[in-house]
Amino acid sequence: MKDVRTIINELAPLDKSVYEGAVRKMDMKTKPKGSLGRLESIALKLCRMQNTLTPKAENKTVFVFASDHGVTDEGVSAFPKEVTSQMVLNFLSGGAAVNVLCRFQSINICVVDVGVDADFDEHKILKQKKVRKSTRNFCKEDAMSEEELYSALNAGVQTFYEENEKRKIYALGLGEMGIGNTTSASAIICAVTGASVAETAGRGTGIDDKKLEHKISVIRKAISERRPIADNGFDVLKKLGGYEIAAMAGAALAAASEGCLILADGVISTAAVLTAYLMNENLVDYVISAHKSVEKSQSAALNFMGLEPHLDLDMRLGEGTGAALAMNFVEAAARIMNEMASFEDAGVSSGD
Amino acid sequence: MKDVRTIINELAPLDKSVYEGAVRKMDMKTKPKGSLGRLESIALKLCRMQNTLTPKAENKTVFVFASDHGVTDEGVSAFPKEVTSQMVLNFLSGGAAVNVLCRFQSINICVVDVGVDADFDEHKILKQKKVRKSTRNFCKEDAMSEEELYSALNAGVQTFYEENEKRKIYALGLGEMGIGNTTSASAIICAVTGASVAETAGRGTGIDDKKLEHKISVIRKAISERRPIADNGFDVLKKLGGYEIAAMAGAALAAASEGCLILADGVISTAAVLTAYLMNENLVDYVISAHKSVEKSQSAALNFMGLEPHLDLDMRLGEGTGAALAMNFVEAAARIMNEMASFEDAGVSSGD
Repeated sequence: MKDVRTIINELAPLDKSVYEGAVRKMDMKTKPKGSLGRLESIALKLCRMQNTLTPKAENKTVFVFASDHGVTDEGVSAFPKEVTSQMVLNFLSGGAAVNVLCRFQSINICVVDVGVDADFDEHKILKQKKVRKSTRNFCKEDAMSEEELYSALNAGVQTFYEENEKRKIYALGLGEMGIGNTTSASAIICAVTGASVAETAGRGTGIDDKKLEHKISVIRKAISERRPIADNGFDVLKKLGGYEIAAMAGAALAAASEGCLILADGVISTAAVLTAYLMNENLVDYVISAHKSVEKSQSAALNFMGLEPHLDLDMRLGEGTGAALAMNFVEAAARIMNEMASFEDAGVSSGD
Repeated sequence: MKDVRTIINELAPLDKSVYEGAVRKMDMKTKPKGSLGRLESIALKLCRMQNTLTPKAENKTVFVFASDHGVTDEGVSAFPKEVTSQMVLNFLSGGAAVNVLCRFQSINICVVDVGVDADFDEHKILKQKKVRKSTRNFCKEDAMSEEELYSALNAGVQTFYEENEKRKIYALGLGEMGIGNTTSASAIICAVTGASVAETAGRGTGIDDKKLEHKISVIRKAISERRPIADNGFDVLKKLGGYEIAAMAGAALAAASEGCLILADGVISTAAVLTAYLMNENLVDYVISAHKSVEKSQSAALNFMGLEPHLDLDMRLGEGTGAALAMNFVEAAARIMNEMASFEDAGVSSGD
C-alpha cells in the first residue's frame, strides 16, 4: 500500500488523449451541443480520469471521518463536544442525514474514527484508525505533531485503498463529523488563501452574533500565533488542522491516484482538499465541488482552486450530505455518455 | 373525470394545519436547525400538500408533451421541424436524455402527442391525444382556436388522471418536445410579465446572432399583432401558445388538484405553469422550480410567481431533463422527514 508521500510524488496531470474523442461522442448525442451543461463536463471528466469513452460511476461511496478538536475549549461551537461521539453512534445506527441520503441512492458509507474522544465497539461500517483522542487547542500550541499528521493523512489513504480493494470505487464523497471543525477549516482556508477571517467565518452549527465574534477572534489568534506557511499543506494542517481534515486530504490523494472522482462536500471537506491541492496541484483534475455551503470561507477555497459548486441548496450540515446528493449527477453523467442515442442511431436530423 | 374548468374553480390554497407539527418534527432531527436548507422546505411542502407528517414521494413520473408549432415557418429554430417527430420516436425507443435520466432513477415516463405533425404507431409509453397537426403561425393568426385550447388543456388533465389512477403519483415532472417552442414560451412570458423580448429571448436549441435577432423580431411582432390579455392565461395560450404548453398547464392543474408536487423544468414548462397560475394562483403552492435554464425569460416567469430554481447546471435541453434530475431531491426530502433520527431517539445532545 502506497503511503501519502509516494502518492504526492507520483500524482500526474490527467492524460488528455481521450478528450477529443469523448467530446466528439458527446456532441453526436441527440441534443443540441452543450445543452446538458455541467452534466456534460462531469461526463468528459470521467472519461479523462478513466481513459475511456464508456465511463463508470459504480460503487459510489461516502467516507465520514470523525474527530474531536482541542479548540472547542475556547467555546466556539453551539453544540457540546460530546456530540461528536454521539453522532458517530448515530451514523452507526443509520439515523443521521448522511445515512438516509446514502441508503436510498445505494451509496456505500464508511465511518472512520481518527480522533474522537471516546471509545467505540466494533461495527461493520466503522473503521478504527484513531491517531489520538482529540487534537490540541491550536490557540495555545500546534494542533498535532508531525508524526500525528502523517498518521492522519495515511489513515485516509488506507481507508481508500482498503475499501477500493473490496470493490473498485469510481466516485468518492468526503464527509466528516467533528464539533469545532468549522473553526479549524476557516483557519486553514484563511491562512492559505488570505481571505479575511471577519468576512468569511461562519456560524457553524448555529452560533449567535456574540459567539461568532468570539470565534473570529479565536481564528485570528490561532493564525497569528501559529504562523502557518501559507503554501505548505503539511504545515497548515499540522498547526491548524483536525485529524479528520488531514484524513480527508489523504483519502482524496489516494482516490486521485486510482482515477476515482472526488466530491468535495462543504467547507471542512473543501479545506481538506485545499491542503491536499497544496501538496500536489494535479489533485484538482480529479475533484468536483458538490455544493455551495452557507459557510463563506468555502468559496474562498474553491476560487483558489478554480472550482465551482454544483448544488446551491442552502445546506450547511456537512457529514458528506452535499456530496451524497450530488453523487446522483455523477451517475447521470456516466449514463448519458453510455446510454443516450446518437443522431445517427436514432435517425434524428442534426442542427445548423 | 374533472375537466380543467372545474379544477380551476375548485383549487384551494394549501391547508396550513399540519405545518407547525411538521416544522417541530423537522427541528427535532439530529442536525442543526435549518441545516438541510431547501431539502427541508421541500419536505415541509410535501407535508402540507399531503396533510401528513410522513410524506411520500412514490411513483415519480415525467410527462413529455410533444407538439409542432406553426411559427417554425418563420425560421426561428436551429433544427428542422421534423425533429419533433423524430425525437418522439427517440423517446419511445428509450434513447433520449430524459429516458436515460428517468431510467436509472426509477421515474415513470409517459410521452403524449398533442400536436405533432406526424402519425405514430401505438406504443406502451405513448398517449395519442392529438388536438391538431401543429398550431398555426402566431405571427399571422391565433396559434389555436378556443376549442383547441380546451382540448389541449384537457389532454393534460386526462393524462394526469389516467396515470394517477394506475399508481398514485406524488411527484410530477413536466417535460416537452416541440421545435419552435422556445419562441412560443418567450412570447408567453414576455406578454404576461412585461419582460423585454430583446433582453430575455434565448438561443433555444442553438441559433446564431443573426437568427436570434430575427427570433426577437418574430416574438415582438406576434405580441403586438395578437395583443394577448396579459393577466388571462387562456387568452395568452390561445394566441401565443403551443398545444404541449397548454397540455402541461392542464396537467399541472390536475396534479395540484390531487395534492401531487409539480416540478417545472426549463423555460417552456415554466411558461406553462405561468399560464396555469394566471388561471388559479393557488397552483404555485404545489410547484417547485427544478432548475435554472440558460434561457433568460424563465427567470422572469419564476420571479413573477415567486419561485426559485433548485439546480443551476447550465442546462437548456428541456424534455423534462431538469425535472428528472431534481426529482431526486423530492425523494431525499421525504426520506429525511421519515427516516432520520431525532435527538431523543439517537441520544444526541441538542444545541444552545
